[in-house]
Amino acid sequence: MEKQNKIPFSDALLQQACKESSVADLSCATIGETVLVAQWLEKETGEPFIRMDQGSPGLPANVYGLQAEKEALDTGIASQYPAAGGIQELKEAGSEFIKAFINVNITPRSIIPTTGSVAASFGSFIGCCQRIPGKNKVLFLDPGFPIQKSQLRIMGLEWKSFDIAPYRGAALKARIEEELKDGTVAAMIYSNPNNPAWTCLEEEELKGIGELATKYDVVIMEDLAYFCMDYRKDLSQPYKAPFLPTVARYTDKYILMLSSSKIFSYAGQRIALCAISDKLFETKYEALAQRYHDAGIFGQTLCASILYMITSGCTSTTQIGYARMLQLSCQGKINFVEDTREYERRAEAMKSCFKKNGFHISYDKDVTAEVGNGFFYTIGYKNMSGEELVVELIRYGISSISLGTTGAKRPGIRACVSRFKMEQLPLLEARLAQFAADHNK
Amino acid sequence: MEKQNKIPFSDALLQQACKESSVADLSCATIGETVLVAQWLEKETGEPFIRMDQGSPGLPANVYGLQAEKEALDTGIASQYPAAGGIQELKEAGSEFIKAFINVNITPRSIIPTTGSVAASFGSFIGCCQRIPGKNKVLFLDPGFPIQKSQLRIMGLEWKSFDIAPYRGAALKARIEEELKDGTVAAMIYSNPNNPAWTCLEEEELKGIGELATKYDVVIMEDLAYFCMDYRKDLSQPYKAPFLPTVARYTDKYILMLSSSKIFSYAGQRIALCAISDKLFETKYEALAQRYHDAGIFGQTLCASILYMITSGCTSTTQIGYARMLQLSCQGKINFVEDTREYERRAEAMKSCFKKNGFHISYDKDVTAEVGNGFFYTIGYKNMSGEELVVELIRYGISSISLGTTGAKRPGIRACVSRFKMEQLPLLEARLAQFAADHNK
Repeated sequence: MEKQNKIPFSDALLQQACKESSVADLSCATIGETVLVAQWLEKETGEPFIRMDQGSPGLPANVYGLQAEKEALDTGIASQYPAAGGIQELKEAGSEFIKAFINVNITPRSIIPTTGSVAASFGSFIGCCQRIPGKNKVLFLDPGFPIQKSQLRIMGLEWKSFDIAPYRGAALKARIEEELKDGTVAAMIYSNPNNPAWTCLEEEELKGIGELATKYDVVIMEDLAYFCMDYRKDLSQPYKAPFLPTVARYTDKYILMLSSSKIFSYAGQRIALCAISDKLFETKYEALAQRYHDAGIFGQTLCASILYMITSGCTSTTQIGYARMLQLSCQGKINFVEDTREYERRAEAMKSCFKKNGFHISYDKDVTAEVGNGFFYTIGYKNMSGEELVVELIRYGISSISLGTTGAKRPGIRACVSRFKMEQLPLLEARLAQFAADHNK
Repeated sequence: MEKQNKIPFSDALLQQACKESSVADLSCATIGETVLVAQWLEKETGEPFIRMDQGSPGLPANVYGLQAEKEALDTGIASQYPAAGGIQELKEAGSEFIKAFINVNITPRSIIPTTGSVAASFGSFIGCCQRIPGKNKVLFLDPGFPIQKSQLRIMGLEWKSFDIAPYRGAALKARIEEELKDGTVAAMIYSNPNNPAWTCLEEEELKGIGELATKYDVVIMEDLAYFCMDYRKDLSQPYKAPFLPTVARYTDKYILMLSSSKIFSYAGQRIALCAISDKLFETKYEALAQRYHDAGIFGQTLCASILYMITSGCTSTTQIGYARMLQLSCQGKINFVEDTREYERRAEAMKSCFKKNGFHISYDKDVTAEVGNGFFYTIGYKNMSGEELVVELIRYGISSISLGTTGAKRPGIRACVSRFKMEQLPLLEARLAQFAADHNK
């Protein structure tokens, strides 16, 4: 019995783990399912896991935010429904933050706090896809964040997607245009830096995307969860170039989603901003007016008839905490880029450990440079598929998700550095060495 | 110019208020729209409003909850995504609370924290209506909470509804069965005490509803936002009869929604519980498995593939605050019924003031007794429609919502006592006297 629990874990144990966790198929498991299986195995066997699955922050929450929340708990706002459009202080701080780090103007009115960026994308998908009859699909620039596709399953909305890796640079615009030509695409989404590949779209690519958005009336949903975390250049100085590359410089059809989860290590508090281009906010859509019996003004419908109907706003005191962190960042008193640079160090160490043992980086290049080190990276092993590799690594006490679940065409897994501690490096080293030895027999 | 701003406000001013607030039609405005118009008029004219529109608590937030949140902010949980199923402490406290005040058993596993009860109902509508092909409508026992219908508009789901007032008591079961016979109803929803009428379904009625739920496989979504706030009987003693009347005693097909907003005056923090019958939680539905590529277990799909995909959990520290308040209630250290009894006094005073000036209570009776005094009441005036009355009262600086927006057949308005202060009684008295004088000319 004891022997069965040793690494590598047996088929029987893996099957039991899946059964106990109600996971139908580990090779294409969601993040949440993978977490359940890893936790079960850890508990059952006593073997500590190298958890590379969920992108939950591995740093303490920003203390300024926590302090502001404590103060806000004494102000009386906890008893009152927050305004549908959010607490004014946060809306203004968001507008200023976007000005300071992106150099783009969005009025506070058009910035809506949401219960995490997931709520922002869920609501935005709905608003975008319901605004014009017949224009109701989403285009994913893959690889991407699987939850966003799961959101469309809830609504029964269709999507298109392709892995952009072979079309980086000048080729990207033409490839995207192929997908937009039929006019059915209402919104396009990507994260920048990319989850899972940590690649970054460059200004020239964003310019092409912006031009297509205007031409085909497609709303670009830009997921900025890893805001300024491309550590290859210093984006940490407020009101000073270089600014964050964004599609917002090239079109009026955009929604930016700013999560607090990663940059302020604030995932537990569930707070983000949905920042809508002012022009898009003010656009009237007859289909929205008819459906919601309201004025059909995009931003107002999204805020009052969609987002508000789902959560009735988000935690008041957390809104104040987020506002404080954004304000202090604009004042240069919080440097959220330096605060999270630990992730860069972890990625560098882990990637080197993988490479030493015969693994490779699946997505290794941006248009003009090596992919940077950050929150995520991708790993492949010989000609093993991602589905095989994810299960095989779990046998060695290493949990991750298959790149297949992210729409990636290249085989491999997504590794997240956040839960990794540098003192686990010898353990990772040993496990990977054992993996390599076992697979070179 | 000055004269135009005097009460009663002119047509022109009302029109301007609507225009500035992007409100298409005041007579059937949503709560949020009404709030905007009232706030605009208050600011523009300097006339203080009697705000009877939004049901936002008018009492301070529970201090034990606030204190627990402050402590939780120091524990490190703010940085980590909360578990999809919620923080264990809250799940257990919820289970215990339901045992103590309802005398019903639900395991902690089946209790999911949500960003307010709106998120619980939104997710539950989806889960219920997608579980069996062809069974996808919601039946509202009206009058009801308009936001719940707005939630179905987002999803494009259909509903049925009828005003139950003429069918109270023994007649209710047969009337509901008419609606269920065609098999298309997936879920039925009501709030108890009722928003807006403050009527309460009685055990016999709940028994009938439960029997129908089992017979026709309809999930009963019981909105317990005003938990134990039927002040006519003392429901405040944990583990002692009388317990809260509930359908959960009569069927396994139920979801209870427990908001913290009213009983702990915690609306700003956005936290509630979605408590699923254990048997329903464990039921497997093939349609869910296919749609979500998961095991199709109702509770798990609702939790992991629906609710989690919308908000990725809810604010961690607020979960701890809610847990503390539930625990202390079970221990008898918080008496949330007494804590909110101020609403009973306000309702009594306001209703008497309305009646003195020729108004009447639209929904005045339960099956066997006068309707109680609580968070809401309903008001009619002669043969005026609700749409007319809501606009006419706004002219006199009194904001409310039309009963028409709640699915009520009786004409009138919904009045909420929460924002009313007893010191405003003379102002209400004067305004209503002026209204009566003007309308008896």
